[in-house]
Amino acid sequence: VATGGRQRKIIGIIGGMGPAATADLFTKITRATAADGDRDHLRVLVDSNPAIPDRTDAILSGGEDPGPALIETARALETAGAKIIVIPCNTAHWYLESIRNSISVSVLDMIGETASLLAATSGIAVIGLLATSGTLATGLYARALNRVGLACIEPAVAQQDRLMWAIKLVKAGREDQARALALEVAEQLIGRGAQVIVLGCTELPLIVTAQDLAVSVVDPTTVLARAAVLAAGGTLTPTAAPYLS
Amino acid sequence: VATGGRQRKIIGIIGGMGPAATADLFTKITRATAADGDRDHLRVLVDSNPAIPDRTDAILSGGEDPGPALIETARALETAGAKIIVIPCNTAHWYLESIRNSISVSVLDMIGETASLLAATSGIAVIGLLATSGTLATGLYARALNRVGLACIEPAVAQQDRLMWAIKLVKAGREDQARALALEVAEQLIGRGAQVIVLGCTELPLIVTAQDLAVSVVDPTTVLARAAVLAAGGTLTPTAAPYLS
Repeated sequence: VATGGRQRKIIGIIGGMGPAATADLFTKITRATAADGDRDHLRVLVDSNPAIPDRTDAILSGGEDPGPALIETARALETAGAKIIVIPCNTAHWYLESIRNSISVSVLDMIGETASLLAATSGIAVIGLLATSGTLATGLYARALNRVGLACIEPAVAQQDRLMWAIKLVKAGREDQARALALEVAEQLIGRGAQVIVLGCTELPLIVTAQDLAVSVVDPTTVLARAAVLAAGGTLTPTAAPYLS
Repeated sequence: VATGGRQRKIIGIIGGMGPAATADLFTKITRATAADGDRDHLRVLVDSNPAIPDRTDAILSGGEDPGPALIETARALETAGAKIIVIPCNTAHWYLESIRNSISVSVLDMIGETASLLAATSGIAVIGLLATSGTLATGLYARALNRVGLACIEPAVAQQDRLMWAIKLVKAGREDQARALALEVAEQLIGRGAQVIVLGCTELPLIVTAQDLAVSVVDPTTVLARAAVLAAGGTLTPTAAPYLS
């Protein structure tokens, strides 16, 4: 892999939301980078800070504002040399503009990147969204998808409660129980016409794979990993669109 | 999981040697931490710097000294608040003392921790070591094992060349080819009397599992992850000794 001479940028990950999802993004950045050896890889700084207040609690229930901790972490990564900031938490994207306004380096938009990918995919009109109740309340995915002409359907209230329980189970390390719940919610969305399932919470790609469902599955963590590699000047592995199967 | 009030320390990972092994340690720290939710996890800072010069090249062939880059990275992690430093590269432990002498926070010793684990395991006398040629040349594992009364056997020269090729293949993302080569070398060590195989290069746990071999397998990355969780004041998951099966 020829990378000599090209200017490459340091990637900074605002992590801890949750830690396993952060490790997942870091792993996917590594896998998405074409490399014959260590030196072909990109430098990545991670601050996995599980003390960042819960995003859904803040958005829905007036819980502690995670904005200051997100901004503080972004600034520390910028100071350490990061030029491309990524946030492996969909709900935290509610704070994207305030993070962008607080630092002078690039902050990628996982939700916008995912909508762009779907917009470029032929033959789909209805997207089924699995996300936290906080992300649903912000309308971030629905607006991003509507802007590119796609409809977004979400779980009904009782189903959404089950999905939130599944996400909590992943964060507590109980993946098998979580998987069964999440797949049940996804299948209801497919029954209502979803042609693609978006795993719009970074805990979900830890438990759901493309093979689990009858329709295509988009993993925004992989979408973000590939966008980060490109933005940092790395070379993508040649695998064709592994995030949409 | 009750963690309230306990003083917990930030873990810093000197990474990039290689990046996939760094992500593996981070994942294993997360899995080793007992947690009901994000906030039970430890804060982890990672500097995955794949530009750190090759350790085996420096030790065996007079290649560029990785010492300065290791020390610079350790200092940056200390400045960022890390109190427990870990290095997911066995060969880089040749520079452990100079790193320890350059900073004032704790640096864990993956090789020493692994030897302590083996010393506490009954019924074993002969350890088969899979490691880089650089690690073998330093004698770090052999000395650490001998100190606790264990014999260490290493691959013969032609076998060691095959193992180095396997390690390079992992770093190039060609895991399947790498696995076949590494298992062949491990089986030769078992044929020569090894009662336990130590995966003494952090690329090897990415491709070899306990189920692949007829004897117990020790993964020093998991040993280090568990030592880091304890040193940082976290609570270990109750799984009994998953690193020795």
